[in-house]
Amino acid sequence: MSKERQVPVDDRLLTTNPNDIFDDPDIDVVIEVMGGIEETRSLLVKALRNKKHIVTANKDLMALHGPELLLEATANQCDLFYEASVAGGIPILRGLVDGLASDRITKMMGIVNGTTNFILTKMSKNGSAYEDVLKEAQELGYAEADPTSDVSGLDAARKMAILSTLGFSMTIDLDDVKVQGITEISKDDLEYSQKLGYTMKLIGIASRYGEKVEVSVQPTLLPETHPLASVNDEYNAVYVYGEAVGETMFYGPGAGSLPTATAVVSDLVNVLKNMRLGVNGRSAVSPQYPKALKGPEDVYAKFFIRLHVSDEVGVLANITSIFSEYGVSFDKILQLPLKQKESSEIVLITHRASLFNLDRIKQELSNYEMIKEIKSAYRVEGEELL
Amino acid sequence: MSKERQVPVDDRLLTTNPNDIFDDPDIDVVIEVMGGIEETRSLLVKALRNKKHIVTANKDLMALHGPELLLEATANQCDLFYEASVAGGIPILRGLVDGLASDRITKMMGIVNGTTNFILTKMSKNGSAYEDVLKEAQELGYAEADPTSDVSGLDAARKMAILSTLGFSMTIDLDDVKVQGITEISKDDLEYSQKLGYTMKLIGIASRYGEKVEVSVQPTLLPETHPLASVNDEYNAVYVYGEAVGETMFYGPGAGSLPTATAVVSDLVNVLKNMRLGVNGRSAVSPQYPKALKGPEDVYAKFFIRLHVSDEVGVLANITSIFSEYGVSFDKILQLPLKQKESSEIVLITHRASLFNLDRIKQELSNYEMIKEIKSAYRVEGEELL
Repeated sequence: MSKERQVPVDDRLLTTNPNDIFDDPDIDVVIEVMGGIEETRSLLVKALRNKKHIVTANKDLMALHGPELLLEATANQCDLFYEASVAGGIPILRGLVDGLASDRITKMMGIVNGTTNFILTKMSKNGSAYEDVLKEAQELGYAEADPTSDVSGLDAARKMAILSTLGFSMTIDLDDVKVQGITEISKDDLEYSQKLGYTMKLIGIASRYGEKVEVSVQPTLLPETHPLASVNDEYNAVYVYGEAVGETMFYGPGAGSLPTATAVVSDLVNVLKNMRLGVNGRSAVSPQYPKALKGPEDVYAKFFIRLHVSDEVGVLANITSIFSEYGVSFDKILQLPLKQKESSEIVLITHRASLFNLDRIKQELSNYEMIKEIKSAYRVEGEELL
Repeated sequence: MSKERQVPVDDRLLTTNPNDIFDDPDIDVVIEVMGGIEETRSLLVKALRNKKHIVTANKDLMALHGPELLLEATANQCDLFYEASVAGGIPILRGLVDGLASDRITKMMGIVNGTTNFILTKMSKNGSAYEDVLKEAQELGYAEADPTSDVSGLDAARKMAILSTLGFSMTIDLDDVKVQGITEISKDDLEYSQKLGYTMKLIGIASRYGEKVEVSVQPTLLPETHPLASVNDEYNAVYVYGEAVGETMFYGPGAGSLPTATAVVSDLVNVLKNMRLGVNGRSAVSPQYPKALKGPEDVYAKFFIRLHVSDEVGVLANITSIFSEYGVSFDKILQLPLKQKESSEIVLITHRASLFNLDRIKQELSNYEMIKEIKSAYRVEGEELL
């Protein structure tokens, strides 16, 4: 209550006791921007049971308890809107709900974490190392002192859980999201990506085929002409594939006080419209489909693989034959000598392969004595799968 | 009625007499996808007076008569939705309405015509001439046999009239939109643009400063890193600047039967939701502000200017001094010898200048004997104005 604020607020309007709000019949809407999970959840449930509509920007909470809170809201004929929880200034949740009215979503690819996008953009543009850019980002306020939840991919995973639950009408829990962060990405990875015409981004992928879905977050290569490839710095974007509409993209600021505020106020306006029309609590739809997750044998992509090998006759032929055993061929190959004597660097872009086969191939490669090291392996998206 | 269709329709459901629809009390909603202007307008007015809600994809009609039809709809407590009329598969009208609930839009830049974007993309990528690409586009079905309304910019102008009327809450008529098409763009223009780091697009610009607005459509250079620069082929996108949210972009297919159908069905679902809630005809907002258009002295941009000059001492100094008279300096200069003897090509990117001053400068340049020809002059957008 003693915090300095840019806008003067009458002290009599402030309280540290939530019951002052729940018990006040003149209060219709609670805007929750305090963060936190367990304590906040029980406060919001209490608010809903007191017939307060809720607007929240809390992605941690919605990723863990969204479906149950939405049920509680509907039971109390209350609205619970959370546009600000994913990609701040981008009206993506409303875009999905509207799109779903007339189409079926088959895939979403999202750049949904501004900190990691800022870091990867700077690493790509300036050829800098991860640690140096992270430090710069922290100094500029784009990364927190403890950046773990951003750089580990956890923050992006939360948003993908929210997006896929809504887009696929299926309860996707945070634990269902496979996550890999950006901390292992090297300057060399970015340099070779660029040489082959790709841009590296931390991409959240949610894809559906038939009744099964895959939701994951990982460093991913996109063709440099792909619209997501030019989403730079702290910007966010979500690329949506609909069966009928084809490919659409929503782009904008992912965070920041004003963009977040516009999302909160848009939600608030919708609550007020619904109040005036007397239709609150009718727009939330509970997940319609039982959860069904794809296994690694059902997930197909192209892959980028970088190897250090002995510079001997027949190495590439042997590598090729390992891949062929699993029916995987190559789209692009780049081989360059290394500074260390008698070693080469080989960078491969595969054609379509399953995650399951990729893992088996990596296992075989690592057993093969002429391969000194598998330096990295990344997914490649945004191209036709052949 | 004898037309072959992909979906079988019971003949008893078809009629060529509009009154069969207007007089049928069981029909609640009229979907208008027949096109045309005057006859269609009077039919829709009649439908509204018979209390039929309307979903239309007719940009020609909405650009010319949108505000008056919306008034008629409100007067009859009917919905009139037209999402499909601008950028087919992109929910941009709904995005603007939602955005407007919490923000003020200051500028929109749109790639809103798929045919011209296809042509410019192919010209840029393959270095082909306009006429050759147009022919290819016609063979592929991306351009019509008579492509005039697309390549002249008229189709884009209609969409910008609709977008700016909604976004600025001000009746912008088609005649208020300054239009320049793509027919004069040469291979050289595109080549020099690329050399300087720009991509050429046909951009609809709607910008507001204070109470005055500018709406125009013209070939425009964007930095190749700008998100609109990677909107390729027949895709559309609208880039929106909001005072609070900052910069957002909506991207997707601009036309095509299925994308248009998703927009129409989304609108239809909204009509049905409103019917169920009993709130039809309440969402349209009439333009709130009187029309006020910027004159050329109020419109500022950077410009690309390409000149053929005599290869003599002092030419560039003299050109520079003509620009300085009007307070205009240069961001980039590229001078190259021409194949014709004793001639040079000079390409200039200016800093901030008004359209009015640009016209006066062009006048002075054309009077200056050492300048053989002003080959082209284009607007440059998407960079900070200095």
